[in-house]
Amino acid sequence: MTISNYTVTGMTCGHCAASVREEISEIDGVTDVQVDVKTGAVAVSSESELDADAVATAVSEAGYQLVR
Amino acid sequence: MTISNYTVTGMTCGHCAASVREEISEIDGVTDVQVDVKTGAVAVSSESELDADAVATAVSEAGYQLVR
Repeated sequence: MTISNYTVTGMTCGHCAASVREEISEIDGVTDVQVDVKTGAVAVSSESELDADAVATAVSEAGYQLVR
Repeated sequence: MTISNYTVTGMTCGHCAASVREEISEIDGVTDVQVDVKTGAVAVSSESELDADAVATAVSEAGYQLVR
């Protein structure tokens, strides 16, 4: 299992966190997503290495931005 | 038709506004709800005079607070 750490900007509340969590969870192989709204930290557990572009797209679909 | 103006605290984003809008919309007789996240202003259109307690309860159910 792999844990990848990202930073997402623009989240302000629990609803925002839920949106980001939901979109990232839909990526193939993702088993868990932890989001800290205050810091923007997002930890993604997955079966194998994640494609950063896929994560960026998911975050974008939720309406936020991945720091790269 | 009546338009009632309220102030709601704690909303930070569009998701918050949607939650408040959704809960207030469920009150009998409500025909429209406009929410301004930045100011907390909520304008409720309804067929007749609204019960402020019902509005306060709806806002509370959404997770926010009505200023009274």
